[in-house]
Amino acid sequence: MVVAKRFKLPIFILVAQLAFILIFAFLAEYDGTAQPKNTDTLSAPVPQYYPMFQDVHVMMFIGFGFLMTFLKRYGFSAVGINMLIAAFCLQWATIVRGFIHSDILGGEKFKVHITEMLSADFAAATVLISFGALLGKTSPLQLLIMATIEIIFAQINEYIGVHIFHAVDIGESMYVHVFGAYFGLAVARVLFNEEVESSNKEGSVYHSDIFAMIGTVFLWLYWPSFNGGAAEGDEQHRAVLNTYFSLAGCCIVTFAISGLLDKKGKFDMVHVQNATLAGGVAVGTCANMPMEPWGALVLGSVAAIISVIGYKYITPFLSSKLRLHDTCGVNNLHGMPGILAGIAGAVMAALATQEKYGESLSEVFPARAPEADNTTVVGAVTGQGRTAGSQGGYQAVALIVSLGIAIVGGLLTGLLLKIPFCDNVRERHALFEDEEHWHVPEEEVTFLDRNYEHVNKNVDTKM
Amino acid sequence: MVVAKRFKLPIFILVAQLAFILIFAFLAEYDGTAQPKNTDTLSAPVPQYYPMFQDVHVMMFIGFGFLMTFLKRYGFSAVGINMLIAAFCLQWATIVRGFIHSDILGGEKFKVHITEMLSADFAAATVLISFGALLGKTSPLQLLIMATIEIIFAQINEYIGVHIFHAVDIGESMYVHVFGAYFGLAVARVLFNEEVESSNKEGSVYHSDIFAMIGTVFLWLYWPSFNGGAAEGDEQHRAVLNTYFSLAGCCIVTFAISGLLDKKGKFDMVHVQNATLAGGVAVGTCANMPMEPWGALVLGSVAAIISVIGYKYITPFLSSKLRLHDTCGVNNLHGMPGILAGIAGAVMAALATQEKYGESLSEVFPARAPEADNTTVVGAVTGQGRTAGSQGGYQAVALIVSLGIAIVGGLLTGLLLKIPFCDNVRERHALFEDEEHWHVPEEEVTFLDRNYEHVNKNVDTKM
Amino acid sequence: MVVAKRFKLPIFILVAQLAFILIFAFLAEYDGTAQPKNTDTLSAPVPQYYPMFQDVHVMMFIGFGFLMTFLKRYGFSAVGINMLIAAFCLQWATIVRGFIHSDILGGEKFKVHITEMLSADFAAATVLISFGALLGKTSPLQLLIMATIEIIFAQINEYIGVHIFHAVDIGESMYVHVFGAYFGLAVARVLFNEEVESSNKEGSVYHSDIFAMIGTVFLWLYWPSFNGGAAEGDEQHRAVLNTYFSLAGCCIVTFAISGLLDKKGKFDMVHVQNATLAGGVAVGTCANMPMEPWGALVLGSVAAIISVIGYKYITPFLSSKLRLHDTCGVNNLHGMPGILAGIAGAVMAALATQEKYGESLSEVFPARAPEADNTTVVGAVTGQGRTAGSQGGYQAVALIVSLGIAIVGGLLTGLLLKIPFCDNVRERHALFEDEEHWHVPEEEVTFLDRNYEHVNKNVDTKM
Repeated sequence: MVVAKRFKLPIFILVAQLAFILIFAFLAEYDGTAQPKNTDTLSAPVPQYYPMFQDVHVMMFIGFGFLMTFLKRYGFSAVGINMLIAAFCLQWATIVRGFIHSDILGGEKFKVHITEMLSADFAAATVLISFGALLGKTSPLQLLIMATIEIIFAQINEYIGVHIFHAVDIGESMYVHVFGAYFGLAVARVLFNEEVESSNKEGSVYHSDIFAMIGTVFLWLYWPSFNGGAAEGDEQHRAVLNTYFSLAGCCIVTFAISGLLDKKGKFDMVHVQNATLAGGVAVGTCANMPMEPWGALVLGSVAAIISVIGYKYITPFLSSKLRLHDTCGVNNLHGMPGILAGIAGAVMAALATQEKYGESLSEVFPARAPEADNTTVVGAVTGQGRTAGSQGGYQAVALIVSLGIAIVGGLLTGLLLKIPFCDNVRERHALFEDEEHWHVPEEEVTFLDRNYEHVNKNVDTKM
Repeated sequence: MVVAKRFKLPIFILVAQLAFILIFAFLAEYDGTAQPKNTDTLSAPVPQYYPMFQDVHVMMFIGFGFLMTFLKRYGFSAVGINMLIAAFCLQWATIVRGFIHSDILGGEKFKVHITEMLSADFAAATVLISFGALLGKTSPLQLLIMATIEIIFAQINEYIGVHIFHAVDIGESMYVHVFGAYFGLAVARVLFNEEVESSNKEGSVYHSDIFAMIGTVFLWLYWPSFNGGAAEGDEQHRAVLNTYFSLAGCCIVTFAISGLLDKKGKFDMVHVQNATLAGGVAVGTCANMPMEPWGALVLGSVAAIISVIGYKYITPFLSSKLRLHDTCGVNNLHGMPGILAGIAGAVMAALATQEKYGESLSEVFPARAPEADNTTVVGAVTGQGRTAGSQGGYQAVALIVSLGIAIVGGLLTGLLLKIPFCDNVRERHALFEDEEHWHVPEEEVTFLDRNYEHVNKNVDTKM
Repeated sequence: MVVAKRFKLPIFILVAQLAFILIFAFLAEYDGTAQPKNTDTLSAPVPQYYPMFQDVHVMMFIGFGFLMTFLKRYGFSAVGINMLIAAFCLQWATIVRGFIHSDILGGEKFKVHITEMLSADFAAATVLISFGALLGKTSPLQLLIMATIEIIFAQINEYIGVHIFHAVDIGESMYVHVFGAYFGLAVARVLFNEEVESSNKEGSVYHSDIFAMIGTVFLWLYWPSFNGGAAEGDEQHRAVLNTYFSLAGCCIVTFAISGLLDKKGKFDMVHVQNATLAGGVAVGTCANMPMEPWGALVLGSVAAIISVIGYKYITPFLSSKLRLHDTCGVNNLHGMPGILAGIAGAVMAALATQEKYGESLSEVFPARAPEADNTTVVGAVTGQGRTAGSQGGYQAVALIVSLGIAIVGGLLTGLLLKIPFCDNVRERHALFEDEEHWHVPEEEVTFLDRNYEHVNKNVDTKM
């Protein structure tokens, strides 16, 4: 059994990689701007998209990876398994998106392009957010199986939202944050393991909390690239400004609420590591809309309040009362702030007037452009001649549908992950413990030996 | 009293955030390039400024934040409070600059623009440098009150230097580094607490020194963006090249002097963490001037010598003899190298000839452009027809005035911070100690338990 | 003798810095785009090259620096000495390249330009890779002497490859990775010290392994900039896409093989820290060629297999059987994957047809352009009218010559480093130990004292 278990994950990965290679070989090709013969350097998209893509890339691997290193005994898995899942998703999401957005059956090949690299990173984010809810409680095999399924659900949901409801979401707060959070929470609910309550490893140590801050700060810094990387011109300028201000407000309000809710007025590292980022999520859907800096500051401040209260009161309640254990509190960082983002986006959309937006109206809300022939290529977004109210309504529908698909998809996936094959983790000692999956070095004692030699000697003599 | 103390900081932050929101709501607006209706993507400033802005952003939050994590028990505050102060300053500095540079009373609204984001980060740097002198010895409330005041003094000083003296300072070595260092040192002098001598917490541990290197290296790497982010064309190319060479020379000379001054020839981590960066400060004022690579190497090398000697001899002297305790040695990293930068800038300016500079002369030194009508908008920099000598003189005056305003402003601020309301820190146990302001997790012992179980058992049995 | 030893390194550095300053003063000048008078901002190269340059810059100082912090007692040296060597190489490589690529004897001055900054970083990488093979076993003086010599050998080798064989290597997998790895291994062979076997310090501790992941992840993220930073247009787009996919495949296959080869199916941090990066090396020579994403995935996957097997079986074999101790396993990360890259490049070149490449053919392979006058400036690459087969042959020759010059140069350098003057490290206690070269703070015990007071008390009472 141990032998079987030992081979399952490697075989899963190798089979997947072989399949990915074959799919790319037969169904993918470079976009025209990456084809040789294209010698027009002006049309090259790398200068335009690469800097912000790299910021988002850092958010996925350094940001999420280190943010999760706060657990005292799960740092290898946090940054290592995060890297494994993300690299897996980059490939798989490119394929799934290719099938959804290209006419593969019609013989068309899907294109690889730097903007697809950015989209794949966004898709990976969805899974990494779900990972946060499950951190320390699942096997790597369960996580890769979850990733395989979640990417499909998430990309279908995004397709429905963007191409059927024509609901905009520049920073993907609905399609990535809300979806990833509630998908992960649904899985966590199904996999609930009462042993977590009695584990003494679900906590941080001094230095693990500082490692986590590496993740927090890079996420905080590069979030404007996450919300603005896909935009351009004045939309991009607004997306960057609004995200910057929302995060600045969120950061200081997080400290205020964290101190206010503590009996001694002390700050809680968990709040600083997570709630300071809620402003980036909350502003994600309407970052490119002219909400003005003060509007961004309000959204960020409200997000901070919601998020800190969530960590302080809601997460413990969910765990003790609803058997829903959320290791990283993704409900507070991605879930509730994402819902706030969706609502803010719907309201902003319902208030968007031609006077205020001018020509930008149809750029920000393509469906508000005048009616047009809609029988073109798959998923083409063209004018619907929508009213402000109707656009606002569709935005709300997209939020609700995202929640629904995430929760249903998560519950089904959770049930699948419970079958023995997936190596579900049950034993308490295996929770939040790297040694289950990694060779962990001899402890700091070797590194302290000069100091502890006498202690150890003393101890040895007693045995 | 404890209750009162507990609520003061949160209330201060929340009131400030509310005030910021109201000020932005009534007095700020997007720059034209961020307004909808602007659909000309070519005029968008994000592609031009964003990459270097993000580098500077990383310097503020990762660079300064982690550089200060070297203290064994103050890592949470170093990176956490650094983040709080910086996010506070980004908002407050944008407002203060808006009032100074826009005709608010005349009904004009101040504009938010990506270049203002860059300027706000520079303004935050001023306060974070001062924070370095006070690290571990003040309450968060004192720091936010200091930030509120310092930003005003610093921005007024910059206005005087740039718009009245027309003294150039591309990397803001005078307006940010000199100002921030001596303002902070003045505050530190007033708040001097003899308990620091006997504290056993003002030191590092092995891993805290490595955390600090994260800050050092990112500051070192991105400094060319700090000195060149606001320039363009050949000026920007020079600023990047000069800063790169100055830092390279500074780095290796720092190792040489650190080893040379040690009895055993060992390197001192404090020098490597800090003095290697002095070259970025020293070249800051004249980075865009044609000093040639060898000139940059000379400045960087001299800065390294000054800085290491400062850490080795001057900092201990100031603390023991002048009751001036400088936790991070900002006098050595920002103060003296900043003065060197100011002097170098004055000399370079006095030597700048039309032959050497050509058309760049009036770009590098706007006041040297031919006389022109000077009765335009507030703070407009227009030609003064200045001579090289006169420009050099004004550069020197700007340095002296920056020193003066910083020291006087710092002394006054220090006196204010001593009033009981500000929660001045006096007790030895509270110095350099995160537990004063944070919930600190149970120590590494829990994380070592497998190794120490027997030790503890053994100990328990004895009790 | 101690006194002598104490002064040697500082004097070496100061003399070198002085020499660098004089050489730059008399033989270097700004490129025209950095000269004043050039007021055409459009021709400024900073916007084009700076973002990817900074990514590469981060790889050198954060990437290599932190990757090597995995050793429990050598973190200061890993990140600190890495910084010293790199900053030294940036200056020295610019000079050496200036002498090779400019007609200095003819009175020409060599130009400093942002692209030369990028080239200098690549040159530094060569030495930092060699450093990896020697980590913990040499004195800083030995490393700087090695750097001085290696830069010359490496730049001559690159000149031969690029300008005589006209062998292309966009990511410098042959000229940097293969050369650096085998040069370092040759030095390590000559300096072999049997004491390493019995050292108890050649290992990691929990947090040092997490520090190392900071280096790993930044190297992994920014590698597309390393392989694409010097390219443009469609070539750059391909370089970015191919490197991205190669690394994604390499990452997940590394986990698979690491688990597969372990008896308990556990992952090995050494593999994750290093082998996940082999894909960036393996794709380096042909990253700009139209290998298609599937080709990149294959190369990355094969590189992962080779690299993990190398760490698991080859490195121990080399150490025990061939007296070749490779601390960081550079043979597995840079050596073998670099050879794979060279072979892949030769094969791709031999298969490159006019039909497939179109106008890009002479851009990717300058020597395949129609014959042309070749008597222009030093090192000018002009058309040779080569066939695909002949280009492939020259690529293979460049790989073999790189291996040869690296090994011979490394052996000679190793012999030089054995002379007493170089302070060769022999004693076991000095291996992998920061205290040899640094002031190391009192250990974590001070930081744990609240927890261990009782333990220590208990212990003291027994003594």
